[in-house]
Amino acid sequence: MAASAATAELRSETSAIERLIEVTRADMARVNDMILARAQSHVDMVPELARYLIESGGKRLRPMLVVAAAQLFGEANGAEVNFAAAIEFLHNATLLHDDVVDESDMRRGRPAARMVWGNQASVLVGDFLLGQAFMMMVETGELPALSVIAKASTVIAEGEVFQLAKTGDLSTTPADYEEVIRAKTATLFEAATEIGAMAGGADAAGRQALRAYGLALGTAFQLADDVLDYRGEAGTMGKNAGDDLREGKMTLPLILALNEASAEERATIAGVLGNADAPDSGLGEVIAIFNRYRTLERTVEVAEGHANAAREALRNLPNSEMRALLGEIAEFSVGRAY
Amino acid sequence: MAASAATAELRSETSAIERLIEVTRADMARVNDMILARAQSHVDMVPELARYLIESGGKRLRPMLVVAAAQLFGEANGAEVNFAAAIEFLHNATLLHDDVVDESDMRRGRPAARMVWGNQASVLVGDFLLGQAFMMMVETGELPALSVIAKASTVIAEGEVFQLAKTGDLSTTPADYEEVIRAKTATLFEAATEIGAMAGGADAAGRQALRAYGLALGTAFQLADDVLDYRGEAGTMGKNAGDDLREGKMTLPLILALNEASAEERATIAGVLGNADAPDSGLGEVIAIFNRYRTLERTVEVAEGHANAAREALRNLPNSEMRALLGEIAEFSVGRAY
Repeated sequence: MAASAATAELRSETSAIERLIEVTRADMARVNDMILARAQSHVDMVPELARYLIESGGKRLRPMLVVAAAQLFGEANGAEVNFAAAIEFLHNATLLHDDVVDESDMRRGRPAARMVWGNQASVLVGDFLLGQAFMMMVETGELPALSVIAKASTVIAEGEVFQLAKTGDLSTTPADYEEVIRAKTATLFEAATEIGAMAGGADAAGRQALRAYGLALGTAFQLADDVLDYRGEAGTMGKNAGDDLREGKMTLPLILALNEASAEERATIAGVLGNADAPDSGLGEVIAIFNRYRTLERTVEVAEGHANAAREALRNLPNSEMRALLGEIAEFSVGRAY
Repeated sequence: MAASAATAELRSETSAIERLIEVTRADMARVNDMILARAQSHVDMVPELARYLIESGGKRLRPMLVVAAAQLFGEANGAEVNFAAAIEFLHNATLLHDDVVDESDMRRGRPAARMVWGNQASVLVGDFLLGQAFMMMVETGELPALSVIAKASTVIAEGEVFQLAKTGDLSTTPADYEEVIRAKTATLFEAATEIGAMAGGADAAGRQALRAYGLALGTAFQLADDVLDYRGEAGTMGKNAGDDLREGKMTLPLILALNEASAEERATIAGVLGNADAPDSGLGEVIAIFNRYRTLERTVEVAEGHANAAREALRNLPNSEMRALLGEIAEFSVGRAY
């Protein structure tokens, strides 16, 4: 009894993400070994650059979700280790390419790889990581999961192109934005939890539930990120506050503000949007407009709706500690933005 | 008899590449349909950019080799259409990324895609084409061929990084160069003929023969390209003469010249190498040094050795018109450089 109470107390004091780290620790040790092994190459610059990024302190949330989804169904066959490492490589490949596309200076709190090794190496090492991700998938022999990953990598690229096409476009609608974040972010979460479920022996309904969970979770996660970009100090996200604005990225807080802004406010926003050298005072003026229309708060509310949908997607699965934890992870994904 | 003589005469007057086009025409019509269909996307910029590159008049040598290798073994199962389209997508993805990495202005005789849509879209549409290439492979359900492609895409990226690391490095050896062209060019030819053979029902020995053929053919092809870069008028390759020199690319004509050059000649080369704005007169001085040491001719001789190895690789296969034609394609790949 005393021990149980202590455990409960410990639980309440421990964040969902810390518990996810704990329950996936053994599997993630194998995943991390594979990640390091597959970042190797006889071409020195490949592992140097890859490891600089991969070891830079990301939480590895996506591969943890693969492993957690496999554990949820209890019949993990070992493929989840390859799947998780592949998801992390795919994620890091898109980060390398994104930083080139966005001309980002910072990533995870330190200079982006492109600032150290250049855009050229970042493009090519991204391609290497993509190839290795597919190799790890192929080695499992699991064609249905391979199909999920191949499709996801295509959709992610499409989403990035769509976002690029919409850069600085003041007429971007909330529906456009939803399409962008669904493709560029939520698709990878969806793929992670779906193939995790497959590795865990899920039936069709279980697979579909984890698919829906991942999609909603990833959407909530990106919405929270987009709020954090305006709220956070540089340290929180490892990027600079207001980067999205300076890069001309049309995220929901901005789109909602433009929908209600006066002509004068629109002009203020247009003057800063996509201006890489915009001063912090310009950013401050835009955030003041956001505050007038509560667009950061409203974006968090939209994120909460998706987090609820993520929890809801798991409702028909058998009750378990892991199911509860995945529900809390959905809450956590939004909680970051407060 | 008269008809046969006429056919023979026609044959002697028709180049190997024209005959390859002819014998693969029916299959390539299906391949081209698939290429166009899979370049589609609801994001307009994706098909615009992809089709600009794909329809820009490349010979589609690599997908033709897939189809030809399948025909050689006579039991094509239909997978060769997907394989061929996937190889072409993989090739075009690397071209898009290469042009960004090399800051190339021209490709296939017109402005590179990055000059029209920008570097950002070129990186992302390259990623899209890579994803689609894997989708087409996955749809065949042929895991061994998928493994070949996944491995090839990794090796190609490694080769590009190695080439980047060696850019402008006067101490680059012929062995370094061989490693670069094996990885960045010959690997894709090797994969194309190997998976073509697999789709055609080749046994292990047949698969190995086509693998060796493709590797040697691709090596000969790249050596000839590297000679053409110095010899060709801009029109021949759709690029500018001397691009490799201005980009600092260490190709064999240059490496052989550096091995024998006087201190003064090395200084002349170093003054032009990697200098994007080097005048044509500087290029002329370097070519004069090449001529002094016959390095373009010697590079063609190395290419001929690989073309011979390609023909030799097919020697133990049953004699057939297709086998003879593939042998002639190896000759053709070098003949371009004369």
